[in-house]
Amino acid sequence: MMTTHDMLLAAQTAREALANAGGERKAEALRCMARRLLAHTEDILAANGQDMEAARGTMPEVMLDRLALNKDRVDAMADGMLQAAALPDPVGRVLRRTERPDGLVIQRVSVPLGVVAIIYESRPNVTADAAALTVMSGNVCVLRCGKEAWRSCSAIVRALREGLAEAGLPEESVSLVEDTSRDSARELMTASGLIDLLIPRGGAGLIRACVDNATVPCIQTGTGICHVYVDAAADLEKALAIVENAKTSRPSVCNAEEVLLVHRAVADVFLPMLKKRLVDDRAAAGKRPVELRLDERAAAIIPGTAAGEGDFDREFLDYILAVAVVDDVHAAIDHIAAHSTGHSDAIVTEDAAAAELFTRSVDSAAVYVNASTRFTDGGEFGLGCEMGISTQKLHARGPMGLEELCSYKYIVRGDGHIR
Amino acid sequence: MMTTHDMLLAAQTAREALANAGGERKAEALRCMARRLLAHTEDILAANGQDMEAARGTMPEVMLDRLALNKDRVDAMADGMLQAAALPDPVGRVLRRTERPDGLVIQRVSVPLGVVAIIYESRPNVTADAAALTVMSGNVCVLRCGKEAWRSCSAIVRALREGLAEAGLPEESVSLVEDTSRDSARELMTASGLIDLLIPRGGAGLIRACVDNATVPCIQTGTGICHVYVDAAADLEKALAIVENAKTSRPSVCNAEEVLLVHRAVADVFLPMLKKRLVDDRAAAGKRPVELRLDERAAAIIPGTAAGEGDFDREFLDYILAVAVVDDVHAAIDHIAAHSTGHSDAIVTEDAAAAELFTRSVDSAAVYVNASTRFTDGGEFGLGCEMGISTQKLHARGPMGLEELCSYKYIVRGDGHIR
Repeated sequence: MMTTHDMLLAAQTAREALANAGGERKAEALRCMARRLLAHTEDILAANGQDMEAARGTMPEVMLDRLALNKDRVDAMADGMLQAAALPDPVGRVLRRTERPDGLVIQRVSVPLGVVAIIYESRPNVTADAAALTVMSGNVCVLRCGKEAWRSCSAIVRALREGLAEAGLPEESVSLVEDTSRDSARELMTASGLIDLLIPRGGAGLIRACVDNATVPCIQTGTGICHVYVDAAADLEKALAIVENAKTSRPSVCNAEEVLLVHRAVADVFLPMLKKRLVDDRAAAGKRPVELRLDERAAAIIPGTAAGEGDFDREFLDYILAVAVVDDVHAAIDHIAAHSTGHSDAIVTEDAAAAELFTRSVDSAAVYVNASTRFTDGGEFGLGCEMGISTQKLHARGPMGLEELCSYKYIVRGDGHIR
Repeated sequence: MMTTHDMLLAAQTAREALANAGGERKAEALRCMARRLLAHTEDILAANGQDMEAARGTMPEVMLDRLALNKDRVDAMADGMLQAAALPDPVGRVLRRTERPDGLVIQRVSVPLGVVAIIYESRPNVTADAAALTVMSGNVCVLRCGKEAWRSCSAIVRALREGLAEAGLPEESVSLVEDTSRDSARELMTASGLIDLLIPRGGAGLIRACVDNATVPCIQTGTGICHVYVDAAADLEKALAIVENAKTSRPSVCNAEEVLLVHRAVADVFLPMLKKRLVDDRAAAGKRPVELRLDERAAAIIPGTAAGEGDFDREFLDYILAVAVVDDVHAAIDHIAAHSTGHSDAIVTEDAAAAELFTRSVDSAAVYVNASTRFTDGGEFGLGCEMGISTQKLHARGPMGLEELCSYKYIVRGDGHIR
């Protein structure tokens, strides 16, 4: 077995080739990688079958679904690589240019970060997505997947490395950590000087471990306790459509709504509409009804589960919605400040002043007016792709695309200039 | 005494007022702060006199000079604040705008980070500089100075807070930690949720402690082991002027040259020129000569001190220059990769290919061709000011001005848009 440390040393050897590869070469590498993925579909599905076999019985059904691959999912991974290959090269752009009166030319130029490590869990497709975006941004990629997905991810990485070699880029540009114990995650977090950016993609426990222990630069991603606030001046039909979309279109993702706040002036009208649409109509249509967890004021208006301790601080990722009645937009803003994870929060209102106050005061990566929180996504935001959604404020906030995987340096050209 | 924790809680109360203050209000606050600084010059100098009194005998002369204030230095602080007040407001700029086909408008808008903490040492003027830049960028500022400068910094902060109050901004916008023990530095490093950015400005020990212990977002600044490489194709007169400037114009600053690398093809000619200019001519002119610490190959050409272990990994901040002869530009690049702190490194050459290779391969915040490393500075780079020089790649690299003290958020406006 290759140790994690040796793998990180091997990754260093690929830095320069990748950093200087140029857009066309990197795109060609991604196309080769996609072809090899497709060519190895059978191997990948066989490896995934072993992972599934081992996981069955030890994992809930929803987790098994995240782990499972099939031909369509492998095709989708290859498609994702081709899409990334079509994006503009983020490296070498002149971001700013200053010419001083004495002729000294100062350019701020985008450069790759270097080595980007990604710790993730059981979704094998993250392997291909992350590799595509790091390579396209000129970064070396070190992947560390969950134990339960290791055979699948390893088969994917073998295919990707064949593609890299075919395109004349070092195979060390993409590697998968062989040690899937907690030790290797800890080792990545503290590999100062060998890792330029660590992106943890996973549950709150992993993110917290990174924040507490990482000595390498790290970006927090993902946890989304997203709010929709229905204002006194809301168009209630719009509000209902937005809440339904934000909660039920895909409850398992981080930009799904978890908490609904309703202004007391419209609660008597809106909450019965909500219950009809999310509970009764869905049940009648044979869809899974949403469980409403109500604070006392909401429970006085409609039936539902009494919200328990922590229900306003939980990422349900399920057909569950915590509901509270608030006095006004200020109370909504305060509630969000106290409970939001800084991912995506929305106001529904026709009142421009309330919208302005909300967008200014809510300190989240994406703040919405009259739209669903579900739009927080690299593709929807025009980045073309996404490496995760940053919920921190340093470096990158919100969806991280190719540009967010870059740094910059100043290149200064003179002719004997001294100060 | 106010505890550090209580001070951080008080700082939170100023966030919103400062974030929403607008450019003109913030500029007015800086002008008021500058006026109050000048008005309190006597108090500040008296407090500084006490600090100097206590420090004398316990501190080397060069450190005493950093601590000392006089009327000119207080004037300079006030001038610095007025200059910052004249800069454009970095907050509220629309950095990117996307309108989707369905009419959803997505704007990326610059916002303050929130609370910025700065840990520094004995230079009282950092107090005013840091306060000016954080307030102008809409950030609340928590300062933690060295014990030896506390009376001086405290007098400065009192004056600044009068200015804030005069301008109608909360006094809590700028505060100075009262506890100057190591505990308070540690407390700032781990105040997750209360500090949005920590900037350590000080020696390598402080920076290391932050990297190892900080759980709050942190930017490494300052340490500069800067190289000048004199290529085979260098114009040797230009090279001599650049090396002299980079080494001797201000040896105590982080962008000063610490290491000279000379291509072997020109070493026989260049090194004697170097010795004449930096050692003999300076001695003859009554200036302090530069001590040359030579590797074996350089020592075979000119007299000087033999370079000891670690001399190529030391920030001398003094009239000392480590000198090595290298085989070619590749060897220079490899030496820099192994020893540079990623601050500022220069090549002197008339060979465009060598310059291109150097600027592409050297992974430092500023990479120079035919110019002195001394230009790495917020003012010189057109940022108008500077909060320190980042030697890391995440978020900000090189001189940090007002923009680098900001984050952004996405503001998304729809009309009932769902996905």
